[in-house]
Amino acid sequence: MSNVLAIDIGGSRFRVGLFNQEGRRLALLEGDTLRSGGREWMLKEVQERCRVLMEKAAAPVKACGVSFGGPVDFLHQRVRSVHSPGWEDFELAHWVEETFSLPCQVDNDGNCGALGEYRFGAGRGSESIVYVTLSTGIGGGVILGGKIYRGKDSLAGEFGHMPMSDSGVLCSCGARGCLEAFCSGDSMSKRAQELAGRRPEGGGRMAELSGSAERISARAVYEAAAEGDLAAVQIVSEAARWLARALCFVIRVLDPDKIILGGGVTAAGNMFLLPVQGFLTEFRSSSSIGYSTEVELAELAQYSPLYGAAALALDLA
Amino acid sequence: MSNVLAIDIGGSRFRVGLFNQEGRRLALLEGDTLRSGGREWMLKEVQERCRVLMEKAAAPVKACGVSFGGPVDFLHQRVRSVHSPGWEDFELAHWVEETFSLPCQVDNDGNCGALGEYRFGAGRGSESIVYVTLSTGIGGGVILGGKIYRGKDSLAGEFGHMPMSDSGVLCSCGARGCLEAFCSGDSMSKRAQELAGRRPEGGGRMAELSGSAERISARAVYEAAAEGDLAAVQIVSEAARWLARALCFVIRVLDPDKIILGGGVTAAGNMFLLPVQGFLTEFRSSSSIGYSTEVELAELAQYSPLYGAAALALDLA
Repeated sequence: MSNVLAIDIGGSRFRVGLFNQEGRRLALLEGDTLRSGGREWMLKEVQERCRVLMEKAAAPVKACGVSFGGPVDFLHQRVRSVHSPGWEDFELAHWVEETFSLPCQVDNDGNCGALGEYRFGAGRGSESIVYVTLSTGIGGGVILGGKIYRGKDSLAGEFGHMPMSDSGVLCSCGARGCLEAFCSGDSMSKRAQELAGRRPEGGGRMAELSGSAERISARAVYEAAAEGDLAAVQIVSEAARWLARALCFVIRVLDPDKIILGGGVTAAGNMFLLPVQGFLTEFRSSSSIGYSTEVELAELAQYSPLYGAAALALDLA
Repeated sequence: MSNVLAIDIGGSRFRVGLFNQEGRRLALLEGDTLRSGGREWMLKEVQERCRVLMEKAAAPVKACGVSFGGPVDFLHQRVRSVHSPGWEDFELAHWVEETFSLPCQVDNDGNCGALGEYRFGAGRGSESIVYVTLSTGIGGGVILGGKIYRGKDSLAGEFGHMPMSDSGVLCSCGARGCLEAFCSGDSMSKRAQELAGRRPEGGGRMAELSGSAERISARAVYEAAAEGDLAAVQIVSEAARWLARALCFVIRVLDPDKIILGGGVTAAGNMFLLPVQGFLTEFRSSSSIGYSTEVELAELAQYSPLYGAAALALDLA
């Protein structure tokens, strides 16, 4: 018997877990990411928690996997993130190997989430899955024939930056009309804040749930929509329609067994999933080109990337 | 030394070729497809030409591959086409085996075109390619790790039916705003015919090249555009922009080594390729999410599917 360590470094939360050989989670420690803390702060937090879990482990810890919430150069096992202070070109796997004397593999959170759901979640038993994560931003990963498919530049599954429309707002990436600017959690909360600012009677319930119009969160939009608030339902519906269109593109390209929606949106449950499935039915109204790809919510919710990191570790152990 | 037979059954042309073991084409016979002739007529035409080539062959013919211009149930080696009279559920590979006593494999023209370019055309030496064929309609195929990737329902690469926009015209498939309705040869000629009917001074050159406004072909649009005719340039540019958007989706999903444009559009050459590449640069204006996927024209032009059929045969021989 042996255990593995899994680390998930995300933009808003970080997590460290201990897993057994079957991928069962034995222990979990998590915390809020202090963005201003940069790399040094994050590594210190992670290191402390890893030590705790390793001391706790009843079986020898044999390997470590890391999910990083930003671009990763998988071939060189280096972070490529240019937005987070101190992370650019950082050899994260090497740091783990030096610090804990464990073999380590690092991948981005989209790929890790896909692998986690494939091995231990909603994708079990499938041949090919596409994982789309909708949280603050939008990312994803592609599993074909049981393996992460990375593509030429390790950019396969970058669903957030599909150029959906010329009329969209400017995305953080610099392009216009990206999917992320239409249906990420961030874009939904912005849309609600705008609406509530312009027309208080429309955004009232969402503002109430969030404390003020300026602080409406995506979660408040979902909650208000679940109560039947019309403005919130409209925002959710528009986001679901853009996502359904993008998923239809994915189906036309890959025709996967399953598309699994993960990340923060899983908290909304059927409130988001049902309209997405409905719009997808509309887009594929063609009778001659049907398909049977199913769209489901991630079973592991916000923990899909952590389980994927555990799978990376198990493959090394 | 041995040879193989390749058959390409398309909606407007059909072709039969004799190939050697290296995939070099030794002989070719082709003709126009008589749509009203249905299956019986087509099989008779194909059979006659295959006999001629087999008698001509200097080495024993060991196998046959077939590209079919419509949906194929690859697993059961059956045509699934519901539009062409007499083809539905026809066991095409079985017919070849019975008629010529040769082992045979059948696939749709999108997959065959992709395989042809991968093995003998612009995709040689690549790991992953996406082939998009723009002729009367739009189709395509995906090669990953050297193999045709078919997906769950054998529908991977159905690029023609990506739902690009709510404002698009009704597609032949029954859905609205499909890519095919924006940039297939058929949609371009319709667009030009409309324009020339509404505003004769605008479509004049295209109508001149085609004999009349009602008969403007996609080829005439390209020819007029090459002469600098403004209306034609506008039609080509709009089609190129829609295609570039769709290719950007493909890149975000798969990040392939190369995207190869084949079919009738190859006749237009740079007149179409350059605007597509230009718009693609615009859509990926993000600095943080670059990619290096190249977009090229098919080397084998309208013969990519025939070469793919030869590759299918060579794998059996």
